[in-house]
Amino acid sequence: MSKKMNAFYAQSGGVTAVINASACGVIETARANKDKIGKVYAGNNGIIGALSEELIDTSKETKSTIAGLRSTPSGAFGSCRFKLKSLEDNKAEYERLIEVFKAHNIGYFFYNGGGDSADTCLKVSQIGKKMGYPITAVHVPKTVDNDLPITDNCPGFGSVAKYIAVSTMEASFDVASMCKTSTKVFVLEVMGRHAGWIAAAGAMASTEDHEIPIVVLFPEVKFDQKAFLKNVDEKVKKFGYCTVVVSEGVAWPNGKFLAETGLKDAFGHSQLGGAAPVVAGMIQEKLGHKYHWAVADYLQRAARHISSKSDVEQAYATGKKAVEYAIKGHNSVMPAIKRTSNKPYKWKIEMAPLKKVANVEKMMPKSFISKDGFGITKKCREYLEPLIRGEEFPAFNKNGLPKYVTLKKIMVEKKCGPFEVK
Amino acid sequence: MSKKMNAFYAQSGGVTAVINASACGVIETARANKDKIGKVYAGNNGIIGALSEELIDTSKETKSTIAGLRSTPSGAFGSCRFKLKSLEDNKAEYERLIEVFKAHNIGYFFYNGGGDSADTCLKVSQIGKKMGYPITAVHVPKTVDNDLPITDNCPGFGSVAKYIAVSTMEASFDVASMCKTSTKVFVLEVMGRHAGWIAAAGAMASTEDHEIPIVVLFPEVKFDQKAFLKNVDEKVKKFGYCTVVVSEGVAWPNGKFLAETGLKDAFGHSQLGGAAPVVAGMIQEKLGHKYHWAVADYLQRAARHISSKSDVEQAYATGKKAVEYAIKGHNSVMPAIKRTSNKPYKWKIEMAPLKKVANVEKMMPKSFISKDGFGITKKCREYLEPLIRGEEFPAFNKNGLPKYVTLKKIMVEKKCGPFEVK
Repeated sequence: MSKKMNAFYAQSGGVTAVINASACGVIETARANKDKIGKVYAGNNGIIGALSEELIDTSKETKSTIAGLRSTPSGAFGSCRFKLKSLEDNKAEYERLIEVFKAHNIGYFFYNGGGDSADTCLKVSQIGKKMGYPITAVHVPKTVDNDLPITDNCPGFGSVAKYIAVSTMEASFDVASMCKTSTKVFVLEVMGRHAGWIAAAGAMASTEDHEIPIVVLFPEVKFDQKAFLKNVDEKVKKFGYCTVVVSEGVAWPNGKFLAETGLKDAFGHSQLGGAAPVVAGMIQEKLGHKYHWAVADYLQRAARHISSKSDVEQAYATGKKAVEYAIKGHNSVMPAIKRTSNKPYKWKIEMAPLKKVANVEKMMPKSFISKDGFGITKKCREYLEPLIRGEEFPAFNKNGLPKYVTLKKIMVEKKCGPFEVK
Repeated sequence: MSKKMNAFYAQSGGVTAVINASACGVIETARANKDKIGKVYAGNNGIIGALSEELIDTSKETKSTIAGLRSTPSGAFGSCRFKLKSLEDNKAEYERLIEVFKAHNIGYFFYNGGGDSADTCLKVSQIGKKMGYPITAVHVPKTVDNDLPITDNCPGFGSVAKYIAVSTMEASFDVASMCKTSTKVFVLEVMGRHAGWIAAAGAMASTEDHEIPIVVLFPEVKFDQKAFLKNVDEKVKKFGYCTVVVSEGVAWPNGKFLAETGLKDAFGHSQLGGAAPVVAGMIQEKLGHKYHWAVADYLQRAARHISSKSDVEQAYATGKKAVEYAIKGHNSVMPAIKRTSNKPYKWKIEMAPLKKVANVEKMMPKSFISKDGFGITKKCREYLEPLIRGEEFPAFNKNGLPKYVTLKKIMVEKKCGPFEVK
């Protein structure tokens, strides 16, 4: 490209504690390369911001606000759950993107998301060839689910893993204190509909220094109620208590989610319960143990206050690298994390072709789940440990709350007509 | 007392993130006064440890382990839910206590708990007069519920309040990112069966810097479904999203808990749901908004990793002061926190008579709840803010987990016969 082009950046899918750290990496690196790249316009609510021409002018945000994104959770620019259809199925959307990009001199496209978003980014990367509009599209990986292929791990996962490991440890200490006369089993429900990476992190709470009886229920393992209850009961008998970490995606052998066991309220309406109350209920009914249960839900993926340092660093680094790739003209790629050494933990960023990333889901390897299906192996522990290592606490205000930044979100003046996003 | 006597210390009721900081204050202060006080024996699982003569010899724990209690959550010595009956109803229990105290030369009794535990401590403080065994009993306040009278606040509350304020803020940032195409309402269930102090802390997440639309449901306010749904809907219309913080103790006008709306599973068994899924369900059914919900349960009261500094300091200070009172011969008292100034926040410890503390529950003042019943007043905010202020992060290990201590728990040799605790 001879003319200096602007960049479009957007956040997509479920947000994380560190997706804004990637945004920080993208924007700061673009600002450091003003000779090669123009302004960074961020999509208001992901790709929808491009389609509706709602572009946030990040150049209007101060240096300290942009720096503050590194320690602010959630998607500061707004995210969306929206998958571009194929070119054949909805050509109008692509024509609209080109219209908006052209109007705002956008030549770089950075999309920060997971597997579905990688597919969107891949489709955008092809409009150059297919529709004659030159664009350099780079995907910035993000997902708490840790299910992207090629990359050793996904920015966003390390922090949720640290939150779950720490919370499992703390709650286990609690139930251990109470078990003599009260609660004997604590059940924690965690995210992960298809892959058990987050549930596995719960098992990290048990260490050589302090053994904690933990039973993990993975979505990769069909739920065996009998074996599960036996395992819990044995642990209660041995330790006096037990902690269960259950993935939201755990299903019965017939494929039905535990969370969907047909709960009905007093009026007969279906009630969407979580997996945790179902598991807790069967522990009380079949074993008679007093229980407590928690559902972490958004708390786990938003908990920037207990993010892992390696996760924050990798989120920033992938954002930075994405801009460097784009400046060098690499289209349709993604910065992937490569682990080069485990002890000491070392990693670097390598370029991965986007077509190998999009729509591929990486499950937990079988070798990471213990033979009985209720725990993790040494191999898994060695993989996870560096990812939850280190702390990078946010600054705190005098009012006791973290210093999270809020953007001004000044919109770029619209130049195109309206467009209905379906 | 002419002869140097040993001390008994025990933890009681639901544990907190900082009850061990009080234990640390008790033990370190006793160690610093070796000329006046002997060893500190801790009850294994609260008062049950005294009855069953299971006494943990804290003198066998290293200085650094005892110091580490300051930043270790839960009850390191084990807690119990056990209320001594009255002297008239179960004289045998009191005789047993005296037998054990006599055998181990125990002249000081420190009981670390809430309202029920204060009652136990009060009863023990009276065995000197009533049964001729001289003992100095001091209660150390502890409860996440913040419902003890006289003291301005209770050690344990500030940390859970900080956790809830920070978590509400983080999850609200998350739902704000998602609301364009996905979740519009996030519901967080918090502890507090009778008093809404913890729920009130959720409202602290909204600040002048960053306004967050939050609706709080207090146990003190009868649930008005119509007004509630109207409030939520208005906030979603104005902000695009809304966060609901619901106390587990919220009840319908007929007194029935929201959490007990007769959920039944596929087999027709009653299922104990939380209040959060019930509230979330009605939001979807009546307003049609997509929701997410979380139940913090033990995570909130065990979260030492995000404790408030003022809470840790006060927990330690009350433990320290309890020993100082006892050495001076004050029986049947409790160190209470007195706020002497709000701006800047200043506090001191004052002596409170135990008979004014036991079995009295302090509710949220009406002046702390906003007129519509769904929020907090400026007065409440000014009360809460200093309590969640400051951070005292635990140290972290290289494995990414907090450095929480585990006790050796070396038991004192038994000198009495067996006793059945009923």
